[in-house]
Amino acid sequence: MYKLILMRHGESEWNLKNLFTGWVDVNLSDTGVVEAKKGGEWLLKEGILPDVVHTSLLRRAIMTANFALNEAGRAWIPVKRSWRLNERHYGSLQGLDKKQIRDQHGEDLFMRWRRSYDFPPPPIEDGSEFDSSSDVRYSDDPQAQRVKNECLKDVLERALPYWESDIVPDLKSGKTVLVAAHGNSLRAIVKYLEGISDDDIAGVNIPTGIPYVYELDENLKPIGGKGRYLDPDAQAKIDAVANQGK
Amino acid sequence: MYKLILMRHGESEWNLKNLFTGWVDVNLSDTGVVEAKKGGEWLLKEGILPDVVHTSLLRRAIMTANFALNEAGRAWIPVKRSWRLNERHYGSLQGLDKKQIRDQHGEDLFMRWRRSYDFPPPPIEDGSEFDSSSDVRYSDDPQAQRVKNECLKDVLERALPYWESDIVPDLKSGKTVLVAAHGNSLRAIVKYLEGISDDDIAGVNIPTGIPYVYELDENLKPIGGKGRYLDPDAQAKIDAVANQGK
Repeated sequence: MYKLILMRHGESEWNLKNLFTGWVDVNLSDTGVVEAKKGGEWLLKEGILPDVVHTSLLRRAIMTANFALNEAGRAWIPVKRSWRLNERHYGSLQGLDKKQIRDQHGEDLFMRWRRSYDFPPPPIEDGSEFDSSSDVRYSDDPQAQRVKNECLKDVLERALPYWESDIVPDLKSGKTVLVAAHGNSLRAIVKYLEGISDDDIAGVNIPTGIPYVYELDENLKPIGGKGRYLDPDAQAKIDAVANQGK
Repeated sequence: MYKLILMRHGESEWNLKNLFTGWVDVNLSDTGVVEAKKGGEWLLKEGILPDVVHTSLLRRAIMTANFALNEAGRAWIPVKRSWRLNERHYGSLQGLDKKQIRDQHGEDLFMRWRRSYDFPPPPIEDGSEFDSSSDVRYSDDPQAQRVKNECLKDVLERALPYWESDIVPDLKSGKTVLVAAHGNSLRAIVKYLEGISDDDIAGVNIPTGIPYVYELDENLKPIGGKGRYLDPDAQAKIDAVANQGK
């Protein structure tokens, strides 16, 4: 039996401001730091201790892992990072207010941009403030540099190669693996592992900072079909994510 | 020309309490967190941005790197860790009060334990509170598990193989390398790089949280013979380290 922990970053400064963030590298808010530490306390309390951590290249996920692991007494474990675990690239919406976008473009388009499986937002303009194509962290991967906008399907398609190449080998070697990432990169992994349909994934929301633990069988299928949130109050936070922009 | 940054962890909870720490995995104090962030601000200000970070397996060095790199906008860089960058193992002194040890054993023995090159403190007792031999982080390296006490010479001898195997290749590939570690593992590296004698290294003290930057020539010799502290107020902090236990 293999053990996998998914953890969405704690509240970021832009979650707080209700802005589309995507690949913009914003910090955790003070609340986000508290959430990250609490996530680590849950891991310690339940004795579910990561042997290795995988993060995106964005500091809100990285610092969430850092705080959580320190709280769990596991700051010292090996770290691997990849842009393939980044948040979905929100294209030209990055930096814009969610409520304003909803008011301007209407509930339907807003929800398609946020939750449809294969409908991406408009691409970000080259050289605009939040265009990341020349960011040094992506300099060794032309595929990352070319990303201008993504739908969830795009995220799944760029995350899966990393799942196979880096996460699966760690799981199969018997390690307890922590993936510290983002709402949409984690939804992609959850969709894949739980076999959720393209339609039904729209209704899946992941709360910030609460470890979601899978026990996986020898074929890496979730035992019982699902994972388990360590915090029994997860549902209230899931509802809060669903209601963003309202 | 190669670039190397050494950074001693910020003040720890036990620096604050004036206890011998060694391999005991204590957290940063609030002051230590501030120091670590300030270290990162210096890096950002001077545009000396690490491409890769090496840390010990102890959280005070790891979290110092985490905070500093986040402040410098480099949270995303690759991370490597090794017990070979750990603080000197203080043997049976770990957990004891520095002033008390000085009063009990006298200034001479106290200073030999703290600063002599080749005179280790007594070994820690197997199974005692701060014995780390069965700590899971050392479980893949019997050499680490066997450490019961160390003098600075021991630290140099276990750090150098890691310097050669992991840090030198990163430097030679042109990366700016950050080593986030401890008073004594960094003194060992400084002794090696600057060719300081066994006697003179006793007088070298490294302040907490201030980046010390080397420019190294093609033979990895420091250009100008020395490194440079980014904070002009480093000397006051160096004096404070020298006066510990007084």
